[in-house]
Amino acid sequence: MAENKKLVEQITARDEDFAQWYTDVVKKAELTGYTSVKGCMVFKPAGYAIWENIRNGLDKRFKETGVENVYMPMFIPESLLQVEKDHVEGFAPEVAWVTYGGLQPLQERMCVRPTSETLFCDLYRKDIQSYRDLPKLYNQWCSVVRWEKTTRPFLRSREFLWQEGHTAHATAEEAEARTIQMLNLYADFLEEELAIPVVRGRKTDKEKFAGAEATYTIEALMHDGKALQAGTSHNFGDGFAKAFGIQFLDKDNQLKYVHQTSWGMTTRLIGAIIMVHGDDSGLVLPPHIAPTQCVVIPIRQKAEGILDKAAQIRDTLAKAGIRVKLDDSDRSPGWKFSDQEMRGFPMRIEIGPKDMEAGQCVLVRRDTREKLVVPIAEVAAASADLLEQIQKDMFERARAHRDAHIWDAADYEEFCRTADEKPGFIRTYWCGDEACENKIKEDTTCTSRCMPFNDSEVPEGARCICCGRPAAKRIYWGKAY
Amino acid sequence: MAENKKLVEQITARDEDFAQWYTDVVKKAELTGYTSVKGCMVFKPAGYAIWENIRNGLDKRFKETGVENVYMPMFIPESLLQVEKDHVEGFAPEVAWVTYGGLQPLQERMCVRPTSETLFCDLYRKDIQSYRDLPKLYNQWCSVVRWEKTTRPFLRSREFLWQEGHTAHATAEEAEARTIQMLNLYADFLEEELAIPVVRGRKTDKEKFAGAEATYTIEALMHDGKALQAGTSHNFGDGFAKAFGIQFLDKDNQLKYVHQTSWGMTTRLIGAIIMVHGDDSGLVLPPHIAPTQCVVIPIRQKAEGILDKAAQIRDTLAKAGIRVKLDDSDRSPGWKFSDQEMRGFPMRIEIGPKDMEAGQCVLVRRDTREKLVVPIAEVAAASADLLEQIQKDMFERARAHRDAHIWDAADYEEFCRTADEKPGFIRTYWCGDEACENKIKEDTTCTSRCMPFNDSEVPEGARCICCGRPAAKRIYWGKAY
Repeated sequence: MAENKKLVEQITARDEDFAQWYTDVVKKAELTGYTSVKGCMVFKPAGYAIWENIRNGLDKRFKETGVENVYMPMFIPESLLQVEKDHVEGFAPEVAWVTYGGLQPLQERMCVRPTSETLFCDLYRKDIQSYRDLPKLYNQWCSVVRWEKTTRPFLRSREFLWQEGHTAHATAEEAEARTIQMLNLYADFLEEELAIPVVRGRKTDKEKFAGAEATYTIEALMHDGKALQAGTSHNFGDGFAKAFGIQFLDKDNQLKYVHQTSWGMTTRLIGAIIMVHGDDSGLVLPPHIAPTQCVVIPIRQKAEGILDKAAQIRDTLAKAGIRVKLDDSDRSPGWKFSDQEMRGFPMRIEIGPKDMEAGQCVLVRRDTREKLVVPIAEVAAASADLLEQIQKDMFERARAHRDAHIWDAADYEEFCRTADEKPGFIRTYWCGDEACENKIKEDTTCTSRCMPFNDSEVPEGARCICCGRPAAKRIYWGKAY
Repeated sequence: MAENKKLVEQITARDEDFAQWYTDVVKKAELTGYTSVKGCMVFKPAGYAIWENIRNGLDKRFKETGVENVYMPMFIPESLLQVEKDHVEGFAPEVAWVTYGGLQPLQERMCVRPTSETLFCDLYRKDIQSYRDLPKLYNQWCSVVRWEKTTRPFLRSREFLWQEGHTAHATAEEAEARTIQMLNLYADFLEEELAIPVVRGRKTDKEKFAGAEATYTIEALMHDGKALQAGTSHNFGDGFAKAFGIQFLDKDNQLKYVHQTSWGMTTRLIGAIIMVHGDDSGLVLPPHIAPTQCVVIPIRQKAEGILDKAAQIRDTLAKAGIRVKLDDSDRSPGWKFSDQEMRGFPMRIEIGPKDMEAGQCVLVRRDTREKLVVPIAEVAAASADLLEQIQKDMFERARAHRDAHIWDAADYEEFCRTADEKPGFIRTYWCGDEACENKIKEDTTCTSRCMPFNDSEVPEGARCICCGRPAAKRIYWGKAY
């Protein structure tokens, strides 16, 4: 019990100091590590395995829509980065520059990719000649570098892992449809696999991607009421195509510019999982994405037959396709419970001499700590059902929390007070003027999160929350990671 | 027919100019592409999909031996690279240096990882305290950079993809066992999945990895008789541990240094597949690794019912787990045959009106062009069997070719003549002196490939092929990629 307590005491309470709680969970669940490389993180096995499951799940969904994976160079020559004006202004201040190759200074310096639009454009310019070459639906999984000053594990680091999809299309309509398709794919993935509800919408011009015509986003709400932009999908129109000269001969024998999109998700998602689902005992992983879904923990494991029975339960679950481990280390059961809870494994199975005698075992949910006694003969089916139930309940709980933290404001005073006092999204009308966005940010540190697809109606007579002029848009505001 | 011929004519004959043939195949099979980034290659979908299959297959085998994946930073501070003396001498001349982060010069420059021993050591120093923390069996999939002057797709480029495994153990014996285990895992993977026979052996001290105590290698023979080092596994002993101070408290309460290993395979393997199996019609992919294993090609596809029947065959194969495509483009069947052969898909299925009437279709092997007429009702089982047969035959053919290109030499004159006239491995005895290795390299451009595990006996009275002194080792020589 003392040992048990000790392990738990090392985490700060979530509602006491959310930032410190986050740091503690990341560290105690052994998701990341540190090296001498400032601002860069190590993904340890427990952290990387979550990313592998995210990657595999997303990749499968991408491929089902016809996307193909490629790998592009990690370096971008300075002249190539400079081709599209908005793009270079957006990224040049935060890239890492390679100036020496071996012992020789480079004739032209190169940055380590902060994103690869320019490289994909460079390739597409060569590879796209005719309408027969379209669409191009490429994606790559890689790491990118942005020279951040302050960093936090998963949320902001100088190097992070992501995927970046880059597509080229014959028409504007097709590009727009693909942009929305990928945003919805992202949203469905978060809701179905990560149990994170999202608001789908469009970014304002102020917040859109450097070089994009339109940026769409999914916004998730963390437990502390701050928003996290969890994925974005951009319609570039033909802006990059014109800057790079990507033209094709269409069926009507006319030379036309392609229309492009790009879309990306990053290892930030791991931060989102932690901050949406975690609690005072540590990490809570949604079953669909958990590298280990269940731990079998023997009680009085030196008693005759217990370890064998525990191993048998593990094998039964593994055979049923459940990602399961047996903790047969020489620690106490209490220590093992705390350890399993800290690491966020969605359920555990306890089996002791009395259980064995009764032909049963105890299933314990990580999320609610509810216990379920089941016959050993039915343990695989019961565990599979329980994991699905946990997945569903985690999503519903996150949705209820999110919905309880969407606030309306009648006037600007109420807006400012809400921003100050009530964590969450604030839903208002907006005139569409960037000046109001800037004022709101200055007054409250809230930024525009998105103009939602649903809940988008602007009734007759609606007014901008900031300036009071006639409203053009429904919009969500929030403080964000 | 004319169209057909045109496609094939664009490849140089393999035995006429092997290097040009290789370049042609890489280009025409659309494995790689070029961008403005000098010395770096683009992995196009057809090339990257091969790597994905290699990665997935290897990763599964790694994990079955207890290996866990991690991800380390891509940057290495100069001071960290310099900790181990031999290591820095081996790599410093060929690394890319980052000197600016954003607009600011860095206080300490950092290289883009050429390999990550130093980073893993930096992590292990922090994470290993007790025998309970051992072994560490970490691996990462990433790209690395070496500033090569001359480059060739897959074989040598400034950036390439690989995996690097890094393990730490309590004892020298355990480290040596892991080193050999991983080498054998590599060898089995090449033989079973890539259909490439290898010679397993140990590198000489001259050829071993910078910082290693012993390097083991698998050496494959390309169709042109040149060798390719396909994978290496290194035993570091406690050299890195001493340089980095990686110590643990053992069960006997003594502070000890860990023993480490590392092992890697790269996208060179794709080059090996091309050069072992390819022919005058293009790429030939082993079925186990081929992203597309079979193409269904309709003959007279506008005839009634043909496209439906072809699609039905595709669906039947897909359901049976075969990676299959239907080519229903508006090209001629002859063009499609050439295209399938160029891309190396292991088999195709032809189906025309007469076949359909007879309830049959035609299976054509890519490797031998043999045709097999089978009832449509049995097409899935027949295709699965045929793919296994192709895999087996490709391996046997490569092994026969390899075995027919291992030469013995009675004296140094015969050695030099063999090196000059007969492509392949030359098998000799050797005194163990680096001076002889140097002389042989100077006289013949042959390098020592390995001291084989099998075929290692040195009989009484055996002499060094170069200096004539008593021999210490059996050794294979060859010209290499």
